[in-house]
Amino acid sequence: MSRLRFRSAGVPLASRRRKGATSPDSAESPFMSQTVIQHVLRRLTEIGLTDVFGVPGDFAFPVNDAICAPDSGLRWIGTANELNAGYAADGYARVRGFSAVCTTYGVGELAALAAIAGAYAEHVPLFHLVGMPNMAVQASHSLMHHTLGNGEFNLFHQMSQPVVCASAIFTPQNAAYETERLIAEALMHRRPVYMGFPADYASQPVLGQASPIPAPRSDPAALEAALVAVLAELGAAKSACILPGTLAARLGLQSAIQAIVDASGLPFATMFMDKTMLDESQPGYLGIYIGKLMNEAVRVFVEGCDRILTIGTMMTDFNSGFFTARLDPERVIAIHHHHVTVRGHVIANVEMADILAALAPRLTRGRRISAPAPELLGDIEGEGDAPITAAALYPRWERFLREGDIVVADTGTVSMGLGFARMPKGATFYNQSLWGAIGWATPAALGAALAAPERRTVLVTGEGAHQFTVQELGQFGRLGLKPVIFVLNNDGYLIERLLCRDPAISYNDIAQWKYAQLPEAFGCEGWFSARVTTCGELDAAMERAARGDVGAYIEIVTDAYMAPELPQRMHENVAKMYKQ
Amino acid sequence: MSRLRFRSAGVPLASRRRKGATSPDSAESPFMSQTVIQHVLRRLTEIGLTDVFGVPGDFAFPVNDAICAPDSGLRWIGTANELNAGYAADGYARVRGFSAVCTTYGVGELAALAAIAGAYAEHVPLFHLVGMPNMAVQASHSLMHHTLGNGEFNLFHQMSQPVVCASAIFTPQNAAYETERLIAEALMHRRPVYMGFPADYASQPVLGQASPIPAPRSDPAALEAALVAVLAELGAAKSACILPGTLAARLGLQSAIQAIVDASGLPFATMFMDKTMLDESQPGYLGIYIGKLMNEAVRVFVEGCDRILTIGTMMTDFNSGFFTARLDPERVIAIHHHHVTVRGHVIANVEMADILAALAPRLTRGRRISAPAPELLGDIEGEGDAPITAAALYPRWERFLREGDIVVADTGTVSMGLGFARMPKGATFYNQSLWGAIGWATPAALGAALAAPERRTVLVTGEGAHQFTVQELGQFGRLGLKPVIFVLNNDGYLIERLLCRDPAISYNDIAQWKYAQLPEAFGCEGWFSARVTTCGELDAAMERAARGDVGAYIEIVTDAYMAPELPQRMHENVAKMYKQ
Repeated sequence: MSRLRFRSAGVPLASRRRKGATSPDSAESPFMSQTVIQHVLRRLTEIGLTDVFGVPGDFAFPVNDAICAPDSGLRWIGTANELNAGYAADGYARVRGFSAVCTTYGVGELAALAAIAGAYAEHVPLFHLVGMPNMAVQASHSLMHHTLGNGEFNLFHQMSQPVVCASAIFTPQNAAYETERLIAEALMHRRPVYMGFPADYASQPVLGQASPIPAPRSDPAALEAALVAVLAELGAAKSACILPGTLAARLGLQSAIQAIVDASGLPFATMFMDKTMLDESQPGYLGIYIGKLMNEAVRVFVEGCDRILTIGTMMTDFNSGFFTARLDPERVIAIHHHHVTVRGHVIANVEMADILAALAPRLTRGRRISAPAPELLGDIEGEGDAPITAAALYPRWERFLREGDIVVADTGTVSMGLGFARMPKGATFYNQSLWGAIGWATPAALGAALAAPERRTVLVTGEGAHQFTVQELGQFGRLGLKPVIFVLNNDGYLIERLLCRDPAISYNDIAQWKYAQLPEAFGCEGWFSARVTTCGELDAAMERAARGDVGAYIEIVTDAYMAPELPQRMHENVAKMYKQ
Repeated sequence: MSRLRFRSAGVPLASRRRKGATSPDSAESPFMSQTVIQHVLRRLTEIGLTDVFGVPGDFAFPVNDAICAPDSGLRWIGTANELNAGYAADGYARVRGFSAVCTTYGVGELAALAAIAGAYAEHVPLFHLVGMPNMAVQASHSLMHHTLGNGEFNLFHQMSQPVVCASAIFTPQNAAYETERLIAEALMHRRPVYMGFPADYASQPVLGQASPIPAPRSDPAALEAALVAVLAELGAAKSACILPGTLAARLGLQSAIQAIVDASGLPFATMFMDKTMLDESQPGYLGIYIGKLMNEAVRVFVEGCDRILTIGTMMTDFNSGFFTARLDPERVIAIHHHHVTVRGHVIANVEMADILAALAPRLTRGRRISAPAPELLGDIEGEGDAPITAAALYPRWERFLREGDIVVADTGTVSMGLGFARMPKGATFYNQSLWGAIGWATPAALGAALAAPERRTVLVTGEGAHQFTVQELGQFGRLGLKPVIFVLNNDGYLIERLLCRDPAISYNDIAQWKYAQLPEAFGCEGWFSARVTTCGELDAAMERAARGDVGAYIEIVTDAYMAPELPQRMHENVAKMYKQ
């Protein structure tokens, strides 16, 4: 019944159709000589894109082909499914500034939607490239696969609207200016954008021209007024501190804020979402400010300061210790993305980048403020055959980390414990604190590891979260990456046990896997893998993993209710947490 | 840093808060004594719901708790992630008629959206229960986790609109009538519905009453007119056949159609999406009608009949052999969901169920029509060390199947080959032919196996599709199911290699897993697992799997371009396939 037509994977069976599809463009006339998708990809590479995460699909072939063309300047990173592609792109973008994810029509784009939403919530710019059916097919309302069978073709584009800051369906006529608009929107808002490519249009030549859209600038008078106001407030304050926020990191403004810290000598705390925004190893670091839930000394200091300079911070439930943080509006100087608020007075049309750059040179060092020093997680407890308690585990993790590490922690008790560790110099902690989708971390760590292959990537995840997206383990192996992966196996969804009515209720139980067997099964050749149940085994496994010569995967088995302090506090306060 | 507060998983640490939450309701006064969620769940159990698939989450705890309450009459089937929960519910609903999936706000519901969309496209009724933040929190626009951080709470509900046929946010005031409306809509349209439960409202008593909404009936005169017209057309025809469609199966009308086949003696073919709508072992079965792509004898017969009676069929691209099917409108009698078309003349307001029930008693058996008999896939080729070619594999699969099997085939070359096998008596073939999301089959097989534990479930999937949703393997083991799982490992996305420009292009390559190790790693204790590369190994593995005493997982390794006939034909016709 079957005839084998193709003898080897090395021989393109349809190479005749390929000619001309990727014709090189002359540098002199980039317009008119490039197809729509080539134009978009060229512009994305010009702003620094080098990798695209995704899953191919037939309606997306013109996009997939253009990405994989030898001269595209892009690397295709295939993942096992689209949600994982979105999460990987998210992790990558947190390290590199932005990223791209490519999916096919309907089945693909919708599967990625939860990841796009997370990126929107957390200000992560993703270019979502979606391959669509030919416009002729759309216009004829054909009953094509990957549709709802109702002849409607614009529904999925519509479904994406709430989770992107801009979108366009690309045509030869609009491609030039829509490319510029979407790049500008993505980089201004630091949010995802949707780029739809009907298959026929994708391969047609661009018929317009457009110039890059410069980032908006501040109103000069407003900027000066804001500067004067901020400097006056800080100058008059007996005590002050800084709360730098994630948005500033997304905008690439860490060094501008560091310059403010250096010039002013002001101490800073971070909220949970903003952890490692600035280097935690420096003297001015106070620790995590999370309202009344933890770190009472930090809370007392921050809330007691005469002035608190917030820079792009968000008073989310988790950041604010479930609304137990109390910053007196009369003491707050808030630098937002496009405006500044000084004790409730709004000065509009001031760009965060502009005022941060202008502030440092005009700040002077005040007298030294006595501030609390951040605590370490404590001495390491337990050895030998002792079980792995929170007191044994979290301080060990803190000490395991080293300079320059990328730590990707999934939402759950692990992030809520490790988030209070003090990170070494240059180490970065990534967590999805606002969106909080468990499962994000495993693919996000893949993306982060690809974004900075020179750094060590440490993934820390609960096993319940790990199950969501586990298949990307295979990509680490395939791509030759050498992460250190810690999977905390505590027999179910522990953070949920702590927050629901009945911790033993069946919905918090999950399938029992043999986690330490997964790297081998997923093709991670030569990795170190271990299942540890005692402090001694944990020490040995960490020591082996620290060598870094191979990927390492450590399943840490603990009691089902072994939790660090924050989730325990949350358990105690659960009745109040959801009322705000 | 941590104190262990909880000694064992068996001791509810917050049991004091649990009292009264699941107070039993008196049978006499179901209203006023039940909470909103209890009321909804009671009504769903009354129409036959017994299982809910899902992933828990904090905003959904009131819903999760009510499902897991001892007196709910429901079983919670936890899956590793929400997309998989949706697919599992979809597979279950195809067997049982409808199903339910439960997710939490934002992160959960969006992750399930692609599965909900597939259910919409393929007429699978799913009750999507979504837990939402308290209405007080929504009204105050708090910056809660699992939101976009913009204070908007109705966006995700809006995003679901295109892929559900009805939706409601439940309140104590509307719960009674919205429950009836959504049940009626889901069962009438055979599509998903969205049921949102603000956490506070979910636990408040129902404050209204409503009666079940009966299914719509036909206009009696229209029904009689349609009957007369259909009978006249069939009576005058020298030759006729039936094309029964999936929608009729979803509406539970197979036996009514079988009665028509029995009464009339008319032969029937099915299109791909409609395979096993009626038993394929009966004499009147012609085979698959798929335009000019395959089965030329079936095409000639069907298109040559004087009259073709279609019942809820859809001329989708795949069903129609990419629009190569040519049914003369002058010969078609089409029974749709709510109307009948006789040679282009529409008779409105006729319910499919009504006309099918009325037809059989008034049909008489005409003279025997000479019709083609369905072909088997051919003799089994290859033995011993011979490699596993298409001619070796597909006929073996056909013979492996037995009476009453549930076959769940993922979209790709495997479904396109196995779809042409003749199924044994009572065997059912499930495939997502319209939506066509790869990865659907692995969780769908889990759902199907749970829906009919007395039948054998056979999952057939390519390895690329399997990777999408592989983690649900663990649930088969956890739930003690004993499926037979065939994973075709052909080193990448073969159907895409056949349809794209360059089959060897990198985006069609995937991570190389050791598939046969997965059942063990995912905790499927005692399963038979094998990796086979030759016909002899395949025979031995099939023989072992056929015993059925344990779950079986067989990785079949083939050449990267080993494809059955249909995908090869598609490859040859690819230039025309996407133009319609």
